[in-house]
Amino acid sequence: MEKLILPKGFKSAGVFAGVKKSGARDMALIVSAVDAKAAGTFTTNQVQAAPVKLCKKHILNGVGRAIVMNSGVANACTGSKGMAAAEKMALMTADKIGCVPEEVFVCSTGSIGPQLPMPAIESGVGILYDALAPDNGYETAEAMMTTDTRPKSIAVDFELGGTPCRMVGFAKGSGMIEPNMATMLSYVITDAAVDGASFQAALSRAVAESFNRISVDGDKSTNDTVLALANGMALNDEIDSNSAEWDRFEALLKEVCFDLAMKIVNDGEGVTRTVTINVRGALSDAEADLAARSVANSMLNKTAWAGERPNWGRVMDALGYSSAKITEEKVSVYYDDVLCVANGMGADTPIEELVRVVSKPHFEINIDLGIGRGHAVVYSCNCTEDYVRINVE
Amino acid sequence: MEKLILPKGFKSAGVFAGVKKSGARDMALIVSAVDAKAAGTFTTNQVQAAPVKLCKKHILNGVGRAIVMNSGVANACTGSKGMAAAEKMALMTADKIGCVPEEVFVCSTGSIGPQLPMPAIESGVGILYDALAPDNGYETAEAMMTTDTRPKSIAVDFELGGTPCRMVGFAKGSGMIEPNMATMLSYVITDAAVDGASFQAALSRAVAESFNRISVDGDKSTNDTVLALANGMALNDEIDSNSAEWDRFEALLKEVCFDLAMKIVNDGEGVTRTVTINVRGALSDAEADLAARSVANSMLNKTAWAGERPNWGRVMDALGYSSAKITEEKVSVYYDDVLCVANGMGADTPIEELVRVVSKPHFEINIDLGIGRGHAVVYSCNCTEDYVRINVE
Repeated sequence: MEKLILPKGFKSAGVFAGVKKSGARDMALIVSAVDAKAAGTFTTNQVQAAPVKLCKKHILNGVGRAIVMNSGVANACTGSKGMAAAEKMALMTADKIGCVPEEVFVCSTGSIGPQLPMPAIESGVGILYDALAPDNGYETAEAMMTTDTRPKSIAVDFELGGTPCRMVGFAKGSGMIEPNMATMLSYVITDAAVDGASFQAALSRAVAESFNRISVDGDKSTNDTVLALANGMALNDEIDSNSAEWDRFEALLKEVCFDLAMKIVNDGEGVTRTVTINVRGALSDAEADLAARSVANSMLNKTAWAGERPNWGRVMDALGYSSAKITEEKVSVYYDDVLCVANGMGADTPIEELVRVVSKPHFEINIDLGIGRGHAVVYSCNCTEDYVRINVE
Repeated sequence: MEKLILPKGFKSAGVFAGVKKSGARDMALIVSAVDAKAAGTFTTNQVQAAPVKLCKKHILNGVGRAIVMNSGVANACTGSKGMAAAEKMALMTADKIGCVPEEVFVCSTGSIGPQLPMPAIESGVGILYDALAPDNGYETAEAMMTTDTRPKSIAVDFELGGTPCRMVGFAKGSGMIEPNMATMLSYVITDAAVDGASFQAALSRAVAESFNRISVDGDKSTNDTVLALANGMALNDEIDSNSAEWDRFEALLKEVCFDLAMKIVNDGEGVTRTVTINVRGALSDAEADLAARSVANSMLNKTAWAGERPNWGRVMDALGYSSAKITEEKVSVYYDDVLCVANGMGADTPIEELVRVVSKPHFEINIDLGIGRGHAVVYSCNCTEDYVRINVE
């Protein structure tokens, strides 16, 4: 099997430690040989898993050596015992690699409610440490999976000031984010030397335009976490947001996040089709976002997209009940570039032309609200009977 | 077949006029022999069907003689041509019964986008008029149906000042309100003599505690309408909100609306189980409502309720991302009266006790947020694969 090589100075592992009943890999560890600049973004859910609370504390230092994670149990709604367990995971990992616990980030994903099985977790940290290698990327991605049907990763090589650098990203999550058995987690690691504050700002922007743009079923997880480490071992001259090369670096970071976000949508439970919702002409970007999400999250639209029918009435309806201001008579809707609704009414486009678009594995719904200059894009997916079956079982 | 008798002075009909391809009844008419006090509430969607716009104008007079409706086509997103069609329906009905068009209320339900088939509608008004009878209640309810599996009606006899009165209610709609092929419509008619302003205020309160309390999939329709007519032909002494008997009358009105709302939830597409979400201890009633709706509308909860598993993690998650303020450690959750979550954590109740509750055809989720005195209740239902199948097809 092909190997996924990490950036310089990084090692990782993904193993079975005994958390999942299935016997599948359920713990992962990523370690940098030296202190790395650390950046992170976290769920805004008011109910936050213990590891999220811990990471939010540790990220304030802006420095990290390791990410340790388990799948199978979310360590959410677990009180002080859960927090002690997350701290123990950080401490044990720190002891193994020889750093302070504050340099270790902890993540969990899986069922909400149960406490972590600490004997398995504790022996798991040792197994992970012994398995660390610079080419264990795929195993690492695999250990992050819950309802995912495939591991998700990406690697990009680039240069900064003529020095070769590398960036590798991992993610787990389903198109329909499923907070009880799944969570959106992503890690991006690079050997580029970058300024910490610039790195955090760039990650926040990248997440806003990637992971935060995918349509979920509205069920925001208690564990969503994106972490990024940059260890500088490529030995390029450190860049910051004022550097000539920064924009290119940030664009790469965005590209990696976007690629992973699209892999999440495409691997959604029961998903067979992805749909991009572009809204323009809103009173503001924020209102465009509300309008796009209203369409993207509507079960009636998601089921219509499974049916290969250009059901624009459901689009108009969802726009109408969104919190964005709309004026019915000003709305235009295109499926890809085929006009479907003009002035808020059916445009008499032959149904076959519309069916051709909505039957594709991916299509766009381009909406012009016609009353302003705000725009936004959201990436969504269809909902099939399989989604319900998976979530009922 | 048993007959549903209307209150004194009312006649109605439900016929096939040629709107639906299936040949099922698709037009209904309700007529009062004399001017009735009219009250109404309408969808808050920014996209409103032509008949909704027309009814909102006519209701300002507070007087009505008739309700004419069709199923199959919603007459929404149909522009000025659609408005002319709705006005034509009112005018033709008014001509038949000998009143002004402003005394006729018009409703449509069905596909968004297409124009009404006016030849069918126009001949339908004549067929309806000829079919009017005081005991056609069931046929009337049947003509309102779209994806409904059964007609929905209720009749109540009561006395005011010793005078016998009667109230009959009709409704159509599915638990998962489906704006493209369905809509929530309800009509309540009574022969009681009541003050108009008191009647409108009472209807608004009754709707707020019945139709507005049922959980839909969040897809608010373009056509939702509740209309009530009170023609006074019982000849009781007119009552108003200051009368001793008003509270009893208003309670009856609420009961009728509530009964119809529950019939809508129970007839939801693919629904096999209904769930009542009670939230108390919120900072305000409005926040309790937000928290309850977040749980009630969550696809992950709706699918969990199909699975007969006490998945309280999904309840905590939905509370956490609601717009209501919550403090994780203060939250308690009961399934019926069985404690499930205490202080934001699993209460170690034996799983069998919880499974027993969530396997019932109806159960309650009682949530105490523990931070205030606000409370709210929302009536929801499960989501099965059949819901998706119906909406994909």
